[in-house]
Amino acid sequence: MTEATNDIEKKVENMTTKNLEEDVVNPWEVASSSDKGVDYDKLIKRFGSSKVDEELIKRIETVTGKPAHHFLKRGVFFSQRDMHQILNLAEQKKPFFLYTGRGPSSEAMHLGHLIPFIFTKWLQEAFDVPLVIQLTDDEKFLWKDLTLEEASRLSFENAKDIIALGFDVEKTFIFSDLEYIAQSPAFYKNMLRTQKLVTYNQVKGIFGFDDSTCIGKISFPSIQAAPSFSSSFPQIFNNKTNIPCLIPCAIDQDPYFRMTRDVAPRLGYIKPALMHSTFFPALQGAQTKMSASDANSSIFLTDTDKQIKTKVTTVNKYAFSGGGTTTEEHKEKGGNCDVDVSYQYLTFFLEDDNRLEEIRKTYTSGELLTGYLKKELIEILQKIIGEHRQRRSQLTDDIVKQFMTPRKLKFDY
Amino acid sequence: MTEATNDIEKKVENMTTKNLEEDVVNPWEVASSSDKGVDYDKLIKRFGSSKVDEELIKRIETVTGKPAHHFLKRGVFFSQRDMHQILNLAEQKKPFFLYTGRGPSSEAMHLGHLIPFIFTKWLQEAFDVPLVIQLTDDEKFLWKDLTLEEASRLSFENAKDIIALGFDVEKTFIFSDLEYIAQSPAFYKNMLRTQKLVTYNQVKGIFGFDDSTCIGKISFPSIQAAPSFSSSFPQIFNNKTNIPCLIPCAIDQDPYFRMTRDVAPRLGYIKPALMHSTFFPALQGAQTKMSASDANSSIFLTDTDKQIKTKVTTVNKYAFSGGGTTTEEHKEKGGNCDVDVSYQYLTFFLEDDNRLEEIRKTYTSGELLTGYLKKELIEILQKIIGEHRQRRSQLTDDIVKQFMTPRKLKFDY
Repeated sequence: MTEATNDIEKKVENMTTKNLEEDVVNPWEVASSSDKGVDYDKLIKRFGSSKVDEELIKRIETVTGKPAHHFLKRGVFFSQRDMHQILNLAEQKKPFFLYTGRGPSSEAMHLGHLIPFIFTKWLQEAFDVPLVIQLTDDEKFLWKDLTLEEASRLSFENAKDIIALGFDVEKTFIFSDLEYIAQSPAFYKNMLRTQKLVTYNQVKGIFGFDDSTCIGKISFPSIQAAPSFSSSFPQIFNNKTNIPCLIPCAIDQDPYFRMTRDVAPRLGYIKPALMHSTFFPALQGAQTKMSASDANSSIFLTDTDKQIKTKVTTVNKYAFSGGGTTTEEHKEKGGNCDVDVSYQYLTFFLEDDNRLEEIRKTYTSGELLTGYLKKELIEILQKIIGEHRQRRSQLTDDIVKQFMTPRKLKFDY
Repeated sequence: MTEATNDIEKKVENMTTKNLEEDVVNPWEVASSSDKGVDYDKLIKRFGSSKVDEELIKRIETVTGKPAHHFLKRGVFFSQRDMHQILNLAEQKKPFFLYTGRGPSSEAMHLGHLIPFIFTKWLQEAFDVPLVIQLTDDEKFLWKDLTLEEASRLSFENAKDIIALGFDVEKTFIFSDLEYIAQSPAFYKNMLRTQKLVTYNQVKGIFGFDDSTCIGKISFPSIQAAPSFSSSFPQIFNNKTNIPCLIPCAIDQDPYFRMTRDVAPRLGYIKPALMHSTFFPALQGAQTKMSASDANSSIFLTDTDKQIKTKVTTVNKYAFSGGGTTTEEHKEKGGNCDVDVSYQYLTFFLEDDNRLEEIRKTYTSGELLTGYLKKELIEILQKIIGEHRQRRSQLTDDIVKQFMTPRKLKFDY
């Protein structure tokens, strides 16, 4: 057994999520016993990543010459691996690329799904680097009660939502696993190379698989690993195997990339760097993340203005409130921003730092009533989703196909 | 758990090969404690297949209008599944196809490797059906200390040896997994469909995998299953999912197809039929099969006339003899055809039934000396391998590429 293998197994021991006092965070489950949600500082320790601190944020501003995205300033992207190495490259004008993805389990994406894509778009523009977006329709086929045909269709629909965020077709390759693997020998070979180095014991520990898990799930992690390596995209990187990768994703995806980072050096590849986001809370509160399979836990990109309003205003039914139960009580005791879902949503979508701080202060003091807070959020969400609906409606199938065609991007390697 | 899943698990209990009193027969190991080799009648019982009996052989002759191949008459292809269903189809002029394969672990193929291909060629000509030949270079990459590049190269070299046996390019598609999977969405989808239905528990039981097995090996059986389904070759079968398949192979490959036959009905596919061959004995005796990794256990298609002569004549060193240790002893006690490797080889390669029977009688009585038996075998092998060498030398890379290009074959579906 190699040192690297031992490394994985040690980590596996350290990271079991079965301990009931710990938050449960893996690609298929996020649950916390606290109404403030997952304890992210503890997660950084458990996963062995690093905090996104002031120094890093300032360095990102210096290197890109742009003000930091509010997801950085507000701790949405709170954890990272090897970001300083990425910044070293950027300083030296050396290339790297971005990789993120989505499992297309439903036709409609919800607000939570947008977080990594909004930040990825900002990173792409700030650093001017190519981007690959993986749609793991094969994963959804394996985990859900879906046919391959339905999973493929959802990939295509979700690609539309992603494209509607405004990605540049000349710098972005979106691919469905079901489509791309069966037309890319280079990608398939990296899957196999990874599959040869990872044992059942390891995936059992990292992902919690057991003996009744189907063999497709057991080998799937190699598929999410492959896009971390530039050699999986010879059409973009001219067969170069040494272009470093930065992966912005929600922290629940980290197990895949811990595995990838253990395997990379043994393949002669570079470990991918990572930036991890917190979870976008469900309407019911921060104990769990938004889920596409529970319509009432989420606000969808397909929701009408009226649906958005109803979901946000129906306090204590759908949207968890940190306000007092009566106006009198609220004015007396003040609201609790730490657990108020509407306030949490504003930290994601209200870009104006001053206005957000004003809301925080007045809501905490009891001066700002829950109804007004919610009204402000409803307007912001109606605007974001309305604009998204508008952009999506203008997308033709041809544009989607352009994004999804393996091709050279506007970079020279 | 479905009924079919329970079926697999029941079978797994019945077929463990760890029992020391049983012969060990799996895709990676063949070993018998008897110098007569594997007890094939017991194997039929253990694997739950059917004997190739006189009735079946006669029916094959009737349906094809051709005398049975000597591999049928002499018990080389001794076991089968669903062959009568294949004959029903042939009688009704309904289509089916042949599928066989090879794991390209070495540049040189040996005599044992030829057995399924010789018989497959006969079946193809007798029934006039399309044939797909899988080269599992991915398997060899996963199991051996080989790079992907080397495994691909061996596929191409082995394809030459197979083509040199005289397959018809208009009716035969040879493919390397590493090449074809990454250009065939249909094939890849059948892999995934199988991977979703088979658990780790099942492959552990069927193939003897354990927790330290790499995840590539664990999911590999789905790759050997996929060619059993006509929908994996839309270019040949016009996307039809219901063309039945007949697989001629050595009995050690049966675990793959037991798994395939359990999965097929759950996918709405037809179970493949099978014809199983015995093993071609090593020069050292019938306890094991010829192995490409032990040069002295095998006669290779690349061996010179001199090497063939040396390997066969060096009695008791390389080639196990059933003759007496001295001429006097041999004349007195006679030879033992059941354990004599040279005689066994003649049953595979001496087509003339009368001459073979004459040899058997005179060798058993002691009249025919070991030296003469070996001389006859040497001449036959030198002729077969010489002619093969000649045909192989005439093959261009272009011809190999023709066989390996996904394309329509000379059949209409």
